[in-house]
Amino acid sequence: MPSSPTPPLEDRLHTLDELLVEQVADLTRTALTGHRRHLEEISPEAAGLIDSLASYLEGGKLLRPRFCFWGGVAALGREPQPAEVEALARLGAAIELLQAAALMHDDVIDHSPMRRGRPALHMQAEQEHRRAGLAGDPEEYGIAIAIVLGDLALSWSEQMANGVHGDPSLVDRARREFDALRTEVMSGQYLDILHQAGGFASAPDAELAALSVIRWKTVPYTVLRPVRIGAALAGAPDQSLDALSAWAIEVGTAFQLRDDLLSVVGDQDETGKPIGGDIVEGKRTVLLARTWEAADARGRALLDEVVGDAGSDESQIGAVHALMVSTGAVSSVTQEVRRRAARGRALLEGTAELGELGRAGLEALAELATDVDSLPA
Amino acid sequence: MPSSPTPPLEDRLHTLDELLVEQVADLTRTALTGHRRHLEEISPEAAGLIDSLASYLEGGKLLRPRFCFWGGVAALGREPQPAEVEALARLGAAIELLQAAALMHDDVIDHSPMRRGRPALHMQAEQEHRRAGLAGDPEEYGIAIAIVLGDLALSWSEQMANGVHGDPSLVDRARREFDALRTEVMSGQYLDILHQAGGFASAPDAELAALSVIRWKTVPYTVLRPVRIGAALAGAPDQSLDALSAWAIEVGTAFQLRDDLLSVVGDQDETGKPIGGDIVEGKRTVLLARTWEAADARGRALLDEVVGDAGSDESQIGAVHALMVSTGAVSSVTQEVRRRAARGRALLEGTAELGELGRAGLEALAELATDVDSLPA
Repeated sequence: MPSSPTPPLEDRLHTLDELLVEQVADLTRTALTGHRRHLEEISPEAAGLIDSLASYLEGGKLLRPRFCFWGGVAALGREPQPAEVEALARLGAAIELLQAAALMHDDVIDHSPMRRGRPALHMQAEQEHRRAGLAGDPEEYGIAIAIVLGDLALSWSEQMANGVHGDPSLVDRARREFDALRTEVMSGQYLDILHQAGGFASAPDAELAALSVIRWKTVPYTVLRPVRIGAALAGAPDQSLDALSAWAIEVGTAFQLRDDLLSVVGDQDETGKPIGGDIVEGKRTVLLARTWEAADARGRALLDEVVGDAGSDESQIGAVHALMVSTGAVSSVTQEVRRRAARGRALLEGTAELGELGRAGLEALAELATDVDSLPA
Repeated sequence: MPSSPTPPLEDRLHTLDELLVEQVADLTRTALTGHRRHLEEISPEAAGLIDSLASYLEGGKLLRPRFCFWGGVAALGREPQPAEVEALARLGAAIELLQAAALMHDDVIDHSPMRRGRPALHMQAEQEHRRAGLAGDPEEYGIAIAIVLGDLALSWSEQMANGVHGDPSLVDRARREFDALRTEVMSGQYLDILHQAGGFASAPDAELAALSVIRWKTVPYTVLRPVRIGAALAGAPDQSLDALSAWAIEVGTAFQLRDDLLSVVGDQDETGKPIGGDIVEGKRTVLLARTWEAADARGRALLDEVVGDAGSDESQIGAVHALMVSTGAVSSVTQEVRRRAARGRALLEGTAELGELGRAGLEALAELATDVDSLPA
């Protein structure tokens, strides 16, 4: 029987990407079904937590599981076998559960009202408290529920990761990356809290503080550790992991800088969060640091007045937006996203030891995560 | 050379107990040193988190690691070998870190100001915020820090558990118990939140709701899962695990009922928490349910006024205490602690397949955890 010709690269990418997304969903569903059975033994109310978590997990773009998967494919240097796809999907599902936990706790810490186009989890619980006419303070109840469901998601994330089978030394290596991911994202979260409170004393200035938060909060859990988890499981040598780290720092930083832009100039339907949210929450971003640096006294007075004031109205937010544009901060951050994305591409091209298919997958993801061409500025 | 005579049981218990406590401390110290090295790469501020956690872990009685250890010794039916002590100590250290995480988050949820004789972690961070003159709301900052440090402790707990080596099928069994512990304590925490808000609809009444919270929040993570983790690792057959569960439900429930009594009639130096804390926080305990049931209209009016009011003064708290005594609730709960402790002893005596040394260790711990003879009531 003649072998069929290899389909074009783009089709192979697409097919594998779909397979991965499907398997992550399957593994998550199976795990939640098992957890539901356990919770049903406890009480019907507890079993209801599964619905909250399942609904929360919907609508994610699975960016992190896909970075993990394509890192694995790149390290393999060939199409993955079914067992390899499953192991990578399992680690991806674990990262996705970790991300859910991090977002639930993050939204409490940042007082973010929206997530993925819906009320944030603590807001959902707060609304449910009011609807059901429960006792006590609705806001505190919402926070309590988000803490607990986040803790469950964090535990189940780890349980998912613990179910990966394969060569023990490779599984151990991937686990060390997974452990590093958790320590780093939580430490980065801590730096973020400190920075917000003006207590990140070891950072030389506001922009470097914001970049350090990105380096330790966003980069490790969005790109760097996911891609290293996949590649480590697939047996990549240390020097390939280091090359992927260098690439991931550029891509992950560009991703967060773009996210900061999107919060100000983006489209709410696309981001799932209200435009100007970072301004209202007073998030100390690179964009804000550059705006402040370039602003005159009147501009700074405006920033002092509006940034971090939850009561700001649309016209005030619009004025801050205009200032971010007129000072050149928006265009300078946009340029930096482009520059870092380009540097990432160049770094990835230098990793000849990684397979073509996997690198193409990583490149496509990086493009998706750092695209600023559709932004108005 | 003649072999030395076996020392009396009590001495063997004491020696092994000390060895375990020392090893838990050593393993914890080593793990935190490793984490500190990682955090130092991130920032000096992040490395400071280690001191907060290390100081938080001090002063615990290691009740849970000891339940785990003596469960293991009971299942072994002999003195443990050094490698067995280490594996049990490692799981114990993991449980202790999990406990730290649970307490940090719990104290945020319950607004508890004190823990282990010091300000609760979120209160410490709040005070630090004021002392350093940081920006933003000190209370919210305290909560944010407690969420993040709890998340780190939870991750590191799991990392500690993941470092246990030995027969893979036994390690797997112990891990399943550890996984169940986490799911149950967090689900129990959820039931507690719901119960506090008056939303635990599937529970027939206030006392059964409180007992269900004890069954799923306190019992699994204090006695039941720790003892099963140790016994599972030591190869106990399922029927021994079940027997230990039945024993643990009595001992763990008695422990929590005693804890509820201590919060009202205990000694602050011993509990490390302010007396009447449960009354001020409005904790819906079995003790409160029984007081309410037995109270007349005037008594209920007093409860309505004082319980859950953070502004209550000493004389109001004293009046509630007096009501809890005069209604017979204190003595009825005290009797139930005694009854359950006795039932526990009887159940443990029925587990002839478990070793004498281990059973003696479990019995000594159970006595420590359920002793009400020193209470005034």
